[in-house]
Amino acid sequence: MRLVLVAGATEVAAVEGISAAGAHPALMRHTPSADAEILTYGAPVAAPDGTTHPTPVSPEGCPTPAVMTRAAREVLGFDATVVDAGLAAPTGAPVVPLGAEPGRDVRAPEAVPDADGIFDRARRLGRSLPGPLVLAETIPGGTTTALGTLTALGYDAGVSSSLPENPLELKREVVASGLDASGLEPGDAADDPLLAVRAMGDPVLAGVAGLAVGALDSGTEVVLGGGTQMLAAAAVCRAFADGPLELATTSFVADSTPDLRGACAALDLDPTITDPGFTDEHVATRHYLAGVGKEGVGMGGALALAAERGALPAVRDRIRIVYDRLLAGAGADAGEDAPAPGATDAGTDDGR
Amino acid sequence: MRLVLVAGATEVAAVEGISAAGAHPALMRHTPSADAEILTYGAPVAAPDGTTHPTPVSPEGCPTPAVMTRAAREVLGFDATVVDAGLAAPTGAPVVPLGAEPGRDVRAPEAVPDADGIFDRARRLGRSLPGPLVLAETIPGGTTTALGTLTALGYDAGVSSSLPENPLELKREVVASGLDASGLEPGDAADDPLLAVRAMGDPVLAGVAGLAVGALDSGTEVVLGGGTQMLAAAAVCRAFADGPLELATTSFVADSTPDLRGACAALDLDPTITDPGFTDEHVATRHYLAGVGKEGVGMGGALALAAERGALPAVRDRIRIVYDRLLAGAGADAGEDAPAPGATDAGTDDGR
Repeated sequence: MRLVLVAGATEVAAVEGISAAGAHPALMRHTPSADAEILTYGAPVAAPDGTTHPTPVSPEGCPTPAVMTRAAREVLGFDATVVDAGLAAPTGAPVVPLGAEPGRDVRAPEAVPDADGIFDRARRLGRSLPGPLVLAETIPGGTTTALGTLTALGYDAGVSSSLPENPLELKREVVASGLDASGLEPGDAADDPLLAVRAMGDPVLAGVAGLAVGALDSGTEVVLGGGTQMLAAAAVCRAFADGPLELATTSFVADSTPDLRGACAALDLDPTITDPGFTDEHVATRHYLAGVGKEGVGMGGALALAAERGALPAVRDRIRIVYDRLLAGAGADAGEDAPAPGATDAGTDDGR
Repeated sequence: MRLVLVAGATEVAAVEGISAAGAHPALMRHTPSADAEILTYGAPVAAPDGTTHPTPVSPEGCPTPAVMTRAAREVLGFDATVVDAGLAAPTGAPVVPLGAEPGRDVRAPEAVPDADGIFDRARRLGRSLPGPLVLAETIPGGTTTALGTLTALGYDAGVSSSLPENPLELKREVVASGLDASGLEPGDAADDPLLAVRAMGDPVLAGVAGLAVGALDSGTEVVLGGGTQMLAAAAVCRAFADGPLELATTSFVADSTPDLRGACAALDLDPTITDPGFTDEHVATRHYLAGVGKEGVGMGGALALAAERGALPAVRDRIRIVYDRLLAGAGADAGEDAPAPGATDAGTDDGR
């Protein structure tokens, strides 16, 4: 399994109170770049230009879901590839660039002027990558652009939030202003999904949708590993491809999104919802029980694989180790080797 | 262990007869981009812009050493990170960009105008990457720029070749013209190693040297996984850092380089030379016995790890699988998962 993290930014994240994907709005531009480093190396590293990113936490101190996905990766082993779909800050993680700029505020006439180009380039990459693929996202503000895209496409959908109290009214106001600025009514882009992304979406959404369509083009198994942002990607994807698509998300998203299963059914998505069995014993998981974070960086996809392998207890233990490593500010202990993906007959015997 | 592949290009590769790192000179610009994809995915993939690279072979059909390194990775499992130090063609592999352009012909006044900047950025990255690190290179024409750099630094060194008959006279002519164009005599850059790289080197050499110095700065264990190009990198490195440095290369390089051990001693390099035990039963290994290829893409570093783990027989078997996959033009079978590096107590029990 290869987790493909599509990482980017949107100016929507700067709207006060709209996202918890950073301790405060000014720090959110760092979040996707740091998430890419945590997934790749186990901790943030310095980019070649010297840029260093703080470990992303919510205003209350809830750690980024990259911690959970990295923990699952350290237990289960899976390849991880980061795609740059409009990062706002340099990263020390290796990335496949999609030639995307950070997304503009959806209240501008065009949020993603090059949505078509990003989608096409992602589609080419998706056709070519060896699978199975789990697509993941990191983009603060991304549920608002998802809501905007779904609304432009004519879906009457709810979206999730990284905040315990979903600021849905604020998101709806931003989306209404955005539709206005784009000269669109809800549903006006139903026949032109890339118009919806261009007017109301973000570059990560264009990238995820393109990768999914490309994978389906070439018969590669593909899972959307995420929450309501992945519903918007699926809605775009469904205009191009009708192959099998799975949505793998967390119970935190499912429990806080009215009729997630109905939305999946409408998009012909097979839902897998995983309860990681978090307790309030550790700060890293306590916040998730309180409704912060919920999903992101492929957490739902990684947990689904962990549940399938009976490895949730090991992942829960590992989360503490990754969290403590991040707090200590030390690099990952990457001193131990492990068979790389593709090693189909490497003689290991560890139940994989 | 993390293999860091520093990938880039130099115009020197276009000199007729100087390199076998491509079926013909026009194809050599593809080699580093394809090597990065083979190391990452197990086979070339399409870049987002649609660029596809042929599998690199020598004019006689000898496959790129990326095949051997990937085979070792599939057996042993180690992380791999690609650093873009002046790629001439887009790649579908994720890369950490060093902001480098392809190197110019050393017969121009400056081969790498931004050698200092590339070195500094690589050093910052090297300080930060979790180790232990094995540094690797892919750059057609790179032994000529290594010879040029060593000569400018005052070393009377021989260099290896990807060709069975090392065109050393041709390389010396190119280097002599290059020194002339730069207004340098042999040894003139002895006190300014980055001047040697700027005048006579290539961007990959600047990147490898910077990463090595950065790793030594922060006490990270670092191995130079390669042949005579790594001697040039070590010579630059030694002007900045005197920590422990190992050179891990193949018996093919050692057997064809006069006094490799002497050169290592002069640079305080601990040499590890691995004979992979190739036979002439398979085309992928027969060419290496005949003196083609020899080293590259970290082959010596990967084989050293394989030998240490008693895994050379498994790697030899795996080479056929990787080679056949490349010939078939199919993507890697990445369907099997494996514990990722960093999983120090993941409960696996496979002798790692």
